Amino acid sequence: MLEQLLKLCSEVISRENLENTETLTKALEECRRLNLSEDFARRLLGLLLEEYSRLYGPREREDGLGLRAFAARAREMRLSGRPVMRLELGEPDFSAPPSVVEAACKAISEGYSKYGPAIGITELREAIAEKLSERFGVDLKVDNVAITAGGTFATYGSIEALSKPGDEIVIIEPAWPLYSHQAKRLGRKVSKIKTTFEEDWNPVKALQEKVSKLTKIIIINYPNNPTGKVLDPKTLKEILEIAEDVGAWVISDEVYIDFSYNGKSTSILQLSTQKTLMLNSFSKTWGMTGFRVGYVVSEPEIVKKVAAAQNTAITCIPEFIQRAALAALNDEQAAKRNIELIGKRLNILYEELSKSSLIDVKPPQGAMYIFPRIKLENFDSWKFAKALLEEKEVAVAPGACFGDYNNHLRISAVLDEKPLREACKRIREFLEKYG
Amino acid sequence: MLEQLLKLCSEVISRENLENTETLTKALEECRRLNLSEDFARRLLGLLLEEYSRLYGPREREDGLGLRAFAARAREMRLSGRPVMRLELGEPDFSAPPSVVEAACKAISEGYSKYGPAIGITELREAIAEKLSERFGVDLKVDNVAITAGGTFATYGSIEALSKPGDEIVIIEPAWPLYSHQAKRLGRKVSKIKTTFEEDWNPVKALQEKVSKLTKIIIINYPNNPTGKVLDPKTLKEILEIAEDVGAWVISDEVYIDFSYNGKSTSILQLSTQKTLMLNSFSKTWGMTGFRVGYVVSEPEIVKKVAAAQNTAITCIPEFIQRAALAALNDEQAAKRNIELIGKRLNILYEELSKSSLIDVKPPQGAMYIFPRIKLENFDSWKFAKALLEEKEVAVAPGACFGDYNNHLRISAVLDEKPLREACKRIREFLEKYG
Repeated sequence: MLEQLLKLCSEVISRENLENTETLTKALEECRRLNLSEDFARRLLGLLLEEYSRLYGPREREDGLGLRAFAARAREMRLSGRPVMRLELGEPDFSAPPSVVEAACKAISEGYSKYGPAIGITELREAIAEKLSERFGVDLKVDNVAITAGGTFATYGSIEALSKPGDEIVIIEPAWPLYSHQAKRLGRKVSKIKTTFEEDWNPVKALQEKVSKLTKIIIINYPNNPTGKVLDPKTLKEILEIAEDVGAWVISDEVYIDFSYNGKSTSILQLSTQKTLMLNSFSKTWGMTGFRVGYVVSEPEIVKKVAAAQNTAITCIPEFIQRAALAALNDEQAAKRNIELIGKRLNILYEELSKSSLIDVKPPQGAMYIFPRIKLENFDSWKFAKALLEEKEVAVAPGACFGDYNNHLRISAVLDEKPLREACKRIREFLEKYG
Repeated sequence: MLEQLLKLCSEVISRENLENTETLTKALEECRRLNLSEDFARRLLGLLLEEYSRLYGPREREDGLGLRAFAARAREMRLSGRPVMRLELGEPDFSAPPSVVEAACKAISEGYSKYGPAIGITELREAIAEKLSERFGVDLKVDNVAITAGGTFATYGSIEALSKPGDEIVIIEPAWPLYSHQAKRLGRKVSKIKTTFEEDWNPVKALQEKVSKLTKIIIINYPNNPTGKVLDPKTLKEILEIAEDVGAWVISDEVYIDFSYNGKSTSILQLSTQKTLMLNSFSKTWGMTGFRVGYVVSEPEIVKKVAAAQNTAITCIPEFIQRAALAALNDEQAAKRNIELIGKRLNILYEELSKSSLIDVKPPQGAMYIFPRIKLENFDSWKFAKALLEEKEVAVAPGACFGDYNNHLRISAVLDEKPLREACKRIREFLEKYG
């Protein structure tokens, strides 16, 4: 009977259109009739689909993970004495402010280094709820907030909390490669949609086409890494409506929300608290990348589930780190300084890159990046970035790391004015030669 | 065709013996013939099996997770001013030594708070490789070691690295409840074997019966939480042979290896480096529970996979925490002091509990716990522990948290002599009354 089952699986894989809402609806009905669980139907379909793409789908390149190896090469070159200008990572050059360093040391010395609740310490959760409530005119309580191991676990845990293996997660490209990587590791099915430079990175049309009853989560990230795009409230509302129509959750990754330079950045919290989850991190605003602390904001039930996922993976976040985050939250001066600095540099990047006739670049709106389009036919972003690093000692991230964007480069605003201008000059010159 | 497939699934679930090595072998062969992947066969079987236990299996109680709620109640009572003696958790009462606190503060102040490699910093990995090589007479290199977010991510990441969804993980009970919880979250199939007080917690016979070609990983933990059992090299060797016979991996959780009081504790590293993974943590030996730092030791390829899993979930471990761990490694005095202290307390627990005719207790061998058997018919460990906490202000962990051990209690050696003796006295008296 098992042989028969496998044979039938193989036939279903080759003949049925599994990526169809009706197929799922039918399967769910059938499962109810057979007394099988809904989960079973979803996961079986997911399994069949995965096998389908293994057998018939295009070979997907995991370019995003290549960026780490590339960054390691840049680091190695610097260590060997070559003055590489590193603009390839999303790590600010500024460090945690003295207030944060001091608070961390104080907390360690006072023994805040015991097991604590997986959901985070109450003081920090309360402070976050209060700050956000005030800033966005909403009414958040401590139960709406869980502290996470950076933005990374915020997305990982949220995917775990909001979906099951086999469920579809929609990701808007260009995107931080870890979303798709996390979703796949957790056995979720990833559906990518493409936004373009030409359409000003607007995702609405593509989302309308892709999202279906199969969609469990849509992940959005504005201000965007890598494009810097900031979404206006109207567009954000449209996305929420698309999600609502199919009953999908929206995860809004807002780690760059402070880095918004056109005055338009909207938090999802301002528009809806129904089936939405907002996440943020202390990494960028306060230069605390290596502290690994961030948070999620959602309904109390969901927040608890994220904490449960965190409990399973790492038990808890060191309390002394959470106390350092509390100090960061209160250091608005440091945040302001950092935000202004990045904004100034984004303008410098824009000014310098605009000088080249081979580069299409949009005025910066937010985040820490510029994502120019290179006007050369058959431009290969990986090949170019590697050559630029070895020959001109400038490291930038290939556009291919963020999806099907091989004619783009991502340049981070993480150096001071002088080296930044010099790096841009080398990029321009190398492009001329390369073209 | 899909309806047909679901119907057939439902029939296979109810009629076939899926938990059979032959079934898997047949399925794998059939998949090869049909050009389906081996993964597909394994995951499909896993899915069918899971649905089987949902439909026909016993309702499993997740008692292990109840312990956190119980501990929260004990904490709450203390905060409200009641002098509760807390012996319910695996957290030492001693804190990180001054050398560690100092190193952590120094590293934070010096700016070791940037993104770092997911596998951990080289200095710490090298130091661990060196220490272990010297201690166990083996030859480990930096590539054999990955730093993890505590013992918790060490097991989580190892399960991810060594198995796939649907694979069978064998867990020896009584056990730390998180193993099974992690495995299930990762979509693995958990098979539990039971060891008993009567057979001196020896797992060999039960393992021989349970382990099959379906088994991908056996998790062992000696010195054991909760029993304190220390395994002799001969028994450990027998386990390794059982694993080798079926091609399974052995994950050896050695977080209590320093707490071994009968001179017999063997590390798996001393016996085999083939398909074995050893993990440890800084939490217990140096009282660093809240720092969240541990490590895994295995073949370089596996170690890289654990690091990749960590990269996906949390990016990296704060470097200042790793530098604190390096200081701990060099503070052998602090380790020695802590180990002696726990040993002395285990003897006190043994002495005090032996006084009761209602308690069966074995001389302590290792770890930080005593796991006595209560000689009362129909003893309910949860009911007793809750009543003991509310009426006598002593918190202990119910045996049911660790598997089918409802006539046991786990008592942690985490208080000083005087309160420890007093707590035991209250347990004895309450048992008399309770009986």
